Amino acid sequence: MDLGADITLAGRLADAARLAIRPHFRTALDPERKGDASPVTIADRAAEEAMRAILTEERADDGIIGEEFGVTEGRSGRKWVLDPIDGTVGFLAGRPMFGTLIALLVEGFPVLGIIDQPINDERWLGVTGKDTTLNGQPVHTRRCRELSDAALATTGPHYFDDHQGEHFMALAAKTDHKRMVMGGDCYNYAMLASGHIDIVCEAGLKLYDFAALVPIVEGAGGSMSDWNGDPLHAESDGHVIALGDPARLEDVVAALACGH
Amino acid sequence: MDLGADITLAGRLADAARLAIRPHFRTALDPERKGDASPVTIADRAAEEAMRAILTEERADDGIIGEEFGVTEGRSGRKWVLDPIDGTVGFLAGRPMFGTLIALLVEGFPVLGIIDQPINDERWLGVTGKDTTLNGQPVHTRRCRELSDAALATTGPHYFDDHQGEHFMALAAKTDHKRMVMGGDCYNYAMLASGHIDIVCEAGLKLYDFAALVPIVEGAGGSMSDWNGDPLHAESDGHVIALGDPARLEDVVAALACGH
Repeated sequence: MDLGADITLAGRLADAARLAIRPHFRTALDPERKGDASPVTIADRAAEEAMRAILTEERADDGIIGEEFGVTEGRSGRKWVLDPIDGTVGFLAGRPMFGTLIALLVEGFPVLGIIDQPINDERWLGVTGKDTTLNGQPVHTRRCRELSDAALATTGPHYFDDHQGEHFMALAAKTDHKRMVMGGDCYNYAMLASGHIDIVCEAGLKLYDFAALVPIVEGAGGSMSDWNGDPLHAESDGHVIALGDPARLEDVVAALACGH
Repeated sequence: MDLGADITLAGRLADAARLAIRPHFRTALDPERKGDASPVTIADRAAEEAMRAILTEERADDGIIGEEFGVTEGRSGRKWVLDPIDGTVGFLAGRPMFGTLIALLVEGFPVLGIIDQPINDERWLGVTGKDTTLNGQPVHTRRCRELSDAALATTGPHYFDDHQGEHFMALAAKTDHKRMVMGGDCYNYAMLASGHIDIVCEAGLKLYDFAALVPIVEGAGGSMSDWNGDPLHAESDGHVIALGDPARLEDVVAALACGH
C-alpha cells in the first residue's frame, strides 16, 4: 500500500489545525458545555472545520469521523479520524501537551497516524511498516526488562470508574511508583514512542482518541492493545494499553486482571 | 526594599540553570536513586552547581538552601533557595513542564521568586509588591465566583498519604471535576498565576518546592497558604493551597476539612 499522498495530505491537515488552534491557546475562553459536560473550545471546532474543508475538497470519497462534527459517510473504504484537540482540559489549563490527532483507517485498520503539538511544533508520524518519526527523525520506544522498573502514565484516576480504577491501581502497584506520571492525554503516547516512558494505561477512550496512536506506537517498536491484550480496532471498548516493550504485555494484562 | 540587583542576579541564575539543563532533556539517562528513591538527574546537579558557583562568587554572605546540595550558612539574613529541577519525574518522562525554582528569602520571608521553564523559554518572576511577569509581561490570576466552577490541579494523588488523599478528594468533589488536571509540579502554579487554573492543592512540599511560588502567585493577585489557610513560611509543613481568587480561601479550607 503506497501511502505517500496520504502522508502529505495528513501533514497538510495538521498544518491547518495548527493555524486554527494557536491563536486560542492561553486566551480567556468561555467554554461551552457539551452533553457530557467536557469543555470544548472555539479552537477545537475551528481546527476540525479546517481539516474537513481540505478533505471535502480533495478526498470527497473518503469518510470522516470527527470528535466535534461526527460522521461523514464515504464510499472508498477509507476513513479519516480526527480529534482536533485531544486534551481539551489540559489545553484550557494552559499546558503545551494537548495534541491534534489524525488517523487514516483503511478497511477499519489504522494505517497512518499523527500526533501534532501545535505550540511546541512537535509532530509524530506513524505509518504501517515504517519507522515512526518526530519532526522527520526516527524515534524508538525503550526496552523494559521488569514491570517493577516501568514508568507508568495515565491522564488521571478521575477518568476511571471505580472498577477500572481498582484494576489500574493493581497495575500501578507493580510498576515503579516513584516514576508514575499523571496528566498528559495523547502526549503520553508520544513520549512512550520517543522512549521516555514505558506504559500508558487508560479507559474510556473513543476511536478518535486512540486510532492515530496505533501506527505511531507500533512503528516506534511498541504495542497497542486493549486490557485483555487484544489488538485495537474500530469497535474496541476504549480500554487501552500502550507498551514501549511488547515483551511486557503478558505481565501488564495479568497485573490489571488482579484488581478485584 | 530595593531588589533591583537581586532580580538581575536571579535572572542570571536561571540563565545558568537553563544552559546546564537543556542538553540533558530527553536524553537517555540512567538516573541514580537517592535515599528517598526519587529519580535525580545529571541535569539537576549540574544546574544547582552552576547557580551555586555564581552565588559563591557574588553573594558570599548570603545563605543557600538547595534541593541537591543542602544548606550553606550565610550571615546576611538573606537566603537563596534553589530547586534546579522541580518535577524531576516529569522531566524524565520528557514533559516540558518541569521548572527551575529560585527564591530569595529575607529574614525568612520569600520576597522574590522565579519559575523558569528551560525548554519553552518561559520565565515567571514574582517580587513582593510588584506585578508578576511572564517573560517580562504582567500576568494575573482569574476570578472564581463559585468553588463549583473551579479548575483544580495537583501533581498526582500518589503524592498524598491516605489521610491527605481523603481531604483532597473532599475538596475535589466540590470543584468542577471535569476540569481537574493532574501532573504538572511547579507548572501548575505558573498556570494559576497566568489565569488558566483556579486552585492548586498539594502536600509534602519542601521549602525549595514552594518558596519561589509565593511571590509569583501573590504578585499575580492570588494567595498561597497552608491547608488551614495560614501563610506559608520557612517552617511550614508542606501542605499548600494556591488560589487564583483569594476570596475562595474560606471555601477551600472548609472543603479540605470535611475529608475524614
